[in-house]
Amino acid sequence: MRPSHIRLFATGGTFDKEYDEINGRLFFKDSHVREMLSLARCRLPLELETLMMVDSLELSDRDRQFIVDRCRTASEKRIVITHGTDTMELTARTLETAALDKVIVLTGAMIPYKFGSSDGLFNLGSALAFAQTLPDGVYVAMNGRCFPAGTVRKNRGNGFFEQVPPEEPQCET
Amino acid sequence: MRPSHIRLFATGGTFDKEYDEINGRLFFKDSHVREMLSLARCRLPLELETLMMVDSLELSDRDRQFIVDRCRTASEKRIVITHGTDTMELTARTLETAALDKVIVLTGAMIPYKFGSSDGLFNLGSALAFAQTLPDGVYVAMNGRCFPAGTVRKNRGNGFFEQVPPEEPQCET
Amino acid sequence: MRPSHIRLFATGGTFDKEYDEINGRLFFKDSHVREMLSLARCRLPLELETLMMVDSLELSDRDRQFIVDRCRTASEKRIVITHGTDTMELTARTLETAALDKVIVLTGAMIPYKFGSSDGLFNLGSALAFAQTLPDGVYVAMNGRCFPAGTVRKNRGNGFFEQVPPEEPQCET
Amino acid sequence: MRPSHIRLFATGGTFDKEYDEINGRLFFKDSHVREMLSLARCRLPLELETLMMVDSLELSDRDRQFIVDRCRTASEKRIVITHGTDTMELTARTLETAALDKVIVLTGAMIPYKFGSSDGLFNLGSALAFAQTLPDGVYVAMNGRCFPAGTVRKNRGNGFFEQVPPEEPQCET
Repeated sequence: MRPSHIRLFATGGTFDKEYDEINGRLFFKDSHVREMLSLARCRLPLELETLMMVDSLELSDRDRQFIVDRCRTASEKRIVITHGTDTMELTARTLETAALDKVIVLTGAMIPYKFGSSDGLFNLGSALAFAQTLPDGVYVAMNGRCFPAGTVRKNRGNGFFEQVPPEEPQCET
Repeated sequence: MRPSHIRLFATGGTFDKEYDEINGRLFFKDSHVREMLSLARCRLPLELETLMMVDSLELSDRDRQFIVDRCRTASEKRIVITHGTDTMELTARTLETAALDKVIVLTGAMIPYKFGSSDGLFNLGSALAFAQTLPDGVYVAMNGRCFPAGTVRKNRGNGFFEQVPPEEPQCET
Repeated sequence: MRPSHIRLFATGGTFDKEYDEINGRLFFKDSHVREMLSLARCRLPLELETLMMVDSLELSDRDRQFIVDRCRTASEKRIVITHGTDTMELTARTLETAALDKVIVLTGAMIPYKFGSSDGLFNLGSALAFAQTLPDGVYVAMNGRCFPAGTVRKNRGNGFFEQVPPEEPQCET
Repeated sequence: MRPSHIRLFATGGTFDKEYDEINGRLFFKDSHVREMLSLARCRLPLELETLMMVDSLELSDRDRQFIVDRCRTASEKRIVITHGTDTMELTARTLETAALDKVIVLTGAMIPYKFGSSDGLFNLGSALAFAQTLPDGVYVAMNGRCFPAGTVRKNRGNGFFEQVPPEEPQCET
């Protein structure tokens, strides 16, 4: 299996939040994705690019359009986007509408990477794997699972991502 | 995408090494995989089972046969095995020879999970994703990549996993 | 040197802030001081008591009076108080005014303990040491130093604690 | 209270052990004390110097003599030494015999700083505080306590430092 070239877009979100020790608030400085890839000893041919550093609740339509444009113009067919969890499903649907012939996987974190017990490294690992193996489409990778755009929402009560409409009872295949 | 039921076998390896503060040596106590899945907020239907807790350099043929047997008898079609990196390629080939109609992904870590800057969480995330998306076969998931059994070796010099025979120059597709 | 019995009062502050992954805000749950003492393998005869769990900017006069009362009525002569850094100097002066025949050391942290790169453990270690060795009085222990109440302020610009009035040029003794 | 100038000698020990991901063994590279002081936001006038980087079980008489010599010739009156725990009591006695008119505090860690849940930061904080406040003498600072040289041993069973001969029942003063 030849390693796929992947474009990694950082847009901010909890992933990259830091604690400002002077004023006691959370803020964004730089993306930690490069540090995470180094710690992960990741050896994929990756191109990392920070598109913005914002809380996803503050993403405007124009920001989303910029993300779509950069996905379209990127030379790579496989793209991973780190993104705040609050509006990840919306950006996924916007990207889905753009109907690019690419594999695009959005992922994020519930706990900032800098806070020591983050789910971010796990999610980044799974997003990069899904991006290498899934067919063209737009996906959300969270909680070890992968959801096609338009079939997922974040449960505001417990913070987990879930399928919409609710999954039917499963029968093991 | 319906979440696949996955069987997760822990066998030890660097992943699960701990530091014994009384005698200053590394040792195995319990697997940290459950704690890692919790921190990762993983919501896959997973069955976790510890088969053994050993350094992979000490795995005997009998141990490997036991791993093969448990993969064969497990009810799940998709299996992830946490394993020491030193002989991961050998266990992968042994499993390949068994020719099970399953997706089996081996993964591990270069740094113990308990040591705070481990690649283990990233590798676990990618292994679980590969296990959900790849066709039947035996694979090694390390460094963000996935290698079919028999085509991979650990480079003892730098610790990275690489394809054998050496990859040819890549042309971007 | 006989280990001194020490009373440890937790009042909150950055020390004990946590990240709420559901709403993305910082909050207080329980004090982490017990966990920190355990990790520190601390073997002092200590009595730990949580007086409140608040940001020190929200401490009222009544709260401060409660802290003074508890210091007065505690059976121990040596007391350490974990406290938010923003008004630590004020609580120290209030305690100083109470003129108790005790050694009282206030300490805190610039980074929450849960965020993995906190100064809290270092400060706790130094505060407990100062509490064992200094004469009766009220002190602020931060940045490895110890300041008597009334001679210290937090520099809002850089977050460091400094002597007031400004220290004169030092000559090594 | 004027901050005391302190000389900090690093000699290795568990404090500074790292995990070699290529061969799976523990080893020494550089001292982490500078990084720890930075994380601690320490603002003491400190001079840090690495004397050696060894396991304290491997310290020779000549090494101990070198430590004594450096303590004697250092311009600072207050000295902290980071040291492996296994022979800390022996180096302390050797220094005591040298009868220097200085305050010398030895400290160490049961868990390497790099392993994420170390007691090292706490011990460093307490050692620096004891070094500022105690009278001339040689001390071991571990477990939040401080023991004069010659009255302390490491309990090999539980890893805690304890007074010798055993402490008599305490009566609160």
